[in-house]
Amino acid sequence: MDLKDIGEFGFIKRFANKFDSFIKEEELGIGDDCAVIPINESDNYVITTDLLNEDIHFLKDKISPEELGYKSLAVNLSDLAAMGAEPKFSFLSIGIPSHISVEYLDAFMSGFYALSEKYKMPLMGGDTTKSSDKLIINVAVIGQCKKAEMHLRSMAKEGDLICVTGFLGDSAGGLNVILNDVELNPENKILVQKHHVPEPRINEGIWLGKQKSVHAMMDISDGISSDLMHILDASGKSAFIHMDKLPITESLRKVAAENNWNPVELASSGGEDYELLFTIDANDIDRLKKEYKACFLEDISVIGEIKEGQTGISWFKKGENISNNKDGFNHFTKS
Amino acid sequence: MDLKDIGEFGFIKRFANKFDSFIKEEELGIGDDCAVIPINESDNYVITTDLLNEDIHFLKDKISPEELGYKSLAVNLSDLAAMGAEPKFSFLSIGIPSHISVEYLDAFMSGFYALSEKYKMPLMGGDTTKSSDKLIINVAVIGQCKKAEMHLRSMAKEGDLICVTGFLGDSAGGLNVILNDVELNPENKILVQKHHVPEPRINEGIWLGKQKSVHAMMDISDGISSDLMHILDASGKSAFIHMDKLPITESLRKVAAENNWNPVELASSGGEDYELLFTIDANDIDRLKKEYKACFLEDISVIGEIKEGQTGISWFKKGENISNNKDGFNHFTKS
Repeated sequence: MDLKDIGEFGFIKRFANKFDSFIKEEELGIGDDCAVIPINESDNYVITTDLLNEDIHFLKDKISPEELGYKSLAVNLSDLAAMGAEPKFSFLSIGIPSHISVEYLDAFMSGFYALSEKYKMPLMGGDTTKSSDKLIINVAVIGQCKKAEMHLRSMAKEGDLICVTGFLGDSAGGLNVILNDVELNPENKILVQKHHVPEPRINEGIWLGKQKSVHAMMDISDGISSDLMHILDASGKSAFIHMDKLPITESLRKVAAENNWNPVELASSGGEDYELLFTIDANDIDRLKKEYKACFLEDISVIGEIKEGQTGISWFKKGENISNNKDGFNHFTKS
Repeated sequence: MDLKDIGEFGFIKRFANKFDSFIKEEELGIGDDCAVIPINESDNYVITTDLLNEDIHFLKDKISPEELGYKSLAVNLSDLAAMGAEPKFSFLSIGIPSHISVEYLDAFMSGFYALSEKYKMPLMGGDTTKSSDKLIINVAVIGQCKKAEMHLRSMAKEGDLICVTGFLGDSAGGLNVILNDVELNPENKILVQKHHVPEPRINEGIWLGKQKSVHAMMDISDGISSDLMHILDASGKSAFIHMDKLPITESLRKVAAENNWNPVELASSGGEDYELLFTIDANDIDRLKKEYKACFLEDISVIGEIKEGQTGISWFKKGENISNNKDGFNHFTKS
């Protein structure tokens, strides 16, 4: 059988539940942004790991080693942010082909350090090995959070509003610029920068974690059309999403128009935004938006609602449900 | 600059101390078998990670997927054993090239599960990704141990005896069998099996951890001629090693003789033994050997002594120091 027939999640399902009986009360295994292990009555450690392979997750000639070092840690910290956790420790495994120079590695470590320094997060260990031809990077991180402030994917409730931090699609637009060798200009450079140097929403995650009205939370790594499904699956709910409410930057709209790309497609299913996706009690949205803006000088966007019913997303455009409109729908979902 | 000019440890030295100021009291970062983070007044979590790359750490056609799954976890558990820790949680990142079938992955996971089950150790998370052409495996594990029962590399004392569990060199002999395409027979099959399915010394590590007379401890992954140097470096000591006291199986002696290999060289610098190397107060060795044998039905071997003086190993053969005898010495150290 071919892995592409069952996909990453199909493969994980084949073995994950065999380990269930080894997992103790208050521990959480496969299935959320991080695994959870208790420290004491009030606090948990949360742990996540991400593997970045050359030519799959990055093109070595397109991203600088400093950016790659920064991003390798950032994509992991984004998972800690989704748990409302404070970054504590990192571990780096690196497989190095013979053509990589020490200067390249120094620059990589300098990018890794730059993000570590922001959170005074020590690199505690790892593994340095040879690799036959491609650069291989695996980072694991441990964060700490209050048990009462954890917002799992399973916590969405009927009537919740679905919100995101920041803007969606810039990173996917940047990837398009890279893959299509579009000539760089000030506008599309911003998108490439967003793709290469994502900023994990650590402080925003900790702040949102403390809000009792916030229910489910996760980070956006594959695009909301795919990531939201994990919340719906885990919570046993469905959702309405309003395409015209997806937060899209002027830069992305402009670059997309120039290149005949669909910005809504990039925003809904492009991936690598590393923004936070969360659901919140509708009664508290006005206060939350106001206080979030006072703290972070940015808006939160409400993009839809959690509904009862079979897991799935109904897509709306100008108030009209177009989920079953193949012509309209195919424009913004992955084929 | 080329990485091979400075080596793995030279590279690590270039960045490791930048993170020192972020490490808090009672935490331990890069430099021992595991990183250490405190849980409470009495206990620590210890954490380690190992990256296994196809064609560097294993040849996919020579090791079965079950064996590879088992070994990927075993080499990590061996580091927990060196800390006297109980295995608690594992994380698996796997980079999968398109030619790997789901059946191969199922078999890999079945081997991984077989060892997990022995310690009721749940797989708590990880990352499943594509890889362009080679199979990539990164495992991270967390163990738990009593603070009072941890034996760091820095704890060796002058006059300590240097001991090892089990036998040395079988795994290196097995690797030789594989690399030289030696026809398999019952004797050399045992060596190949030791190379492909190492058994981490978890229970032995926990038992040795509880012995107050045991000082420094680590696992043998690169061979004692290299691994012991880490203890000597960390403790600021030197050592005498008696080559004729290295524990070598009859199987290895026989296969080595048949193939004109030097069994002492394989035992001292072959690597991948995953036995425990430790130092102990000489006054307690008789009791320890006796009680260890009563528990594990195996011997502990005393192979040398810790001395004062500049870090380094003096090698003895039949009581004679041959460290400076180039002819004798080159036979059993890496060039």
